[in-house]
Amino acid sequence: MTADIDARLAELGIELPSPPKPVASYVPFVVTGNLVHVSGQVPMGKDGLEFVGKLGQDFDVETGQAAARLCALNIIAQLKTAADGNLDRISRIMRLGGFVNCTADFKAQPLVINGASDLMMDVFGEVGRHARAAVGTNSLPGNVAVEIDAIAELA
Amino acid sequence: MTADIDARLAELGIELPSPPKPVASYVPFVVTGNLVHVSGQVPMGKDGLEFVGKLGQDFDVETGQAAARLCALNIIAQLKTAADGNLDRISRIMRLGGFVNCTADFKAQPLVINGASDLMMDVFGEVGRHARAAVGTNSLPGNVAVEIDAIAELA
Amino acid sequence: MTADIDARLAELGIELPSPPKPVASYVPFVVTGNLVHVSGQVPMGKDGLEFVGKLGQDFDVETGQAAARLCALNIIAQLKTAADGNLDRISRIMRLGGFVNCTADFKAQPLVINGASDLMMDVFGEVGRHARAAVGTNSLPGNVAVEIDAIAELA
Repeated sequence: MTADIDARLAELGIELPSPPKPVASYVPFVVTGNLVHVSGQVPMGKDGLEFVGKLGQDFDVETGQAAARLCALNIIAQLKTAADGNLDRISRIMRLGGFVNCTADFKAQPLVINGASDLMMDVFGEVGRHARAAVGTNSLPGNVAVEIDAIAELA
Repeated sequence: MTADIDARLAELGIELPSPPKPVASYVPFVVTGNLVHVSGQVPMGKDGLEFVGKLGQDFDVETGQAAARLCALNIIAQLKTAADGNLDRISRIMRLGGFVNCTADFKAQPLVINGASDLMMDVFGEVGRHARAAVGTNSLPGNVAVEIDAIAELA
Repeated sequence: MTADIDARLAELGIELPSPPKPVASYVPFVVTGNLVHVSGQVPMGKDGLEFVGKLGQDFDVETGQAAARLCALNIIAQLKTAADGNLDRISRIMRLGGFVNCTADFKAQPLVINGASDLMMDVFGEVGRHARAAVGTNSLPGNVAVEIDAIAELA
């Protein structure tokens, strides 16, 4: 029994963003065999970058979680394109790689990246249970608060 | 001829830790096809986090190596669970991703992560010969000195 | 129709470096199934490390791009060895992971890593279109400006 992910998104009141175009010389995802590698997604909203700043200085954990959630929405939007519009073809979110732009004394990276992980669980259920790394960094592209990449399996 | 990895661990006097539970909304490993993605492991000991601090400031390289080794022990413990208790089913350690919590002038990340790489070679022999990235970061979860994730192949 | 990558390299006037030996206890690449994981490559030139320093402090973006390009040349050199000398066997550059050694206020990591991405496109054409993450870090091995790892598919 496969969940109808689009219905689940609607149920959660989530409208997927347009999948962001890369800002550079690469592609937003690559499908090889049944693997999808999704490029690092930043908190790109309808009107441009959101959540520009650093945890431990400009943003609290809760705001960081909202940034991570927006990254994850963009990952799901990319996966939808990778799966020819059918998110039910995603058979597993394998891994998220989360980078948190922060000060040297900030240490709640896992809580921040939960903003993305929780969304994956909410949207995909069991299929969304993923491995993960969450680390800090002194700087991210455009000074955004969070960047997250992903590996998924296509059925 | 497959090595008996449990025997090798005993020979090395190594007792695997209980595989740490994730501190957040994700799982410690994901198996898809013959790939195992292991979540970022930190230096979690029996009584909690060890090696809390930064290289180049709080710890010397040798202590950093001990932290990396503890991360690798936790990776092996996760792999054992992923392989249904039989580490001989691990046919290759494919990649380690090592993050070293350090000051901006610290540059011996490869030496630090050797604490993990050497253990993989010692325990798994040829099967343990892995690709690797070793980078610095200004901050890690709980301010631990090292975080390492892994990809392995299951036979 | 497979491109003759060696001819393309010659056309671009590119001579591949000798694939650098790891500076530590690991291997430069691992092949499992049709996946190649290439270890993090630094700007190693004929006479040793080049581009030692940080973006936003020691180097401008253009110099950072040259560093990223040298990392990518080393990745291609490793892939050539992984493919038994025949780069036409590389069926896809799946992912680059780019780390930029920089100050906390530097935010042009994507532009820097384009130095590697553009080379992959120039050399491999469609096959070179990859997913990517580009992040900052406060420190890299030997204080080099850029480190890049890669995943590729072997035909």
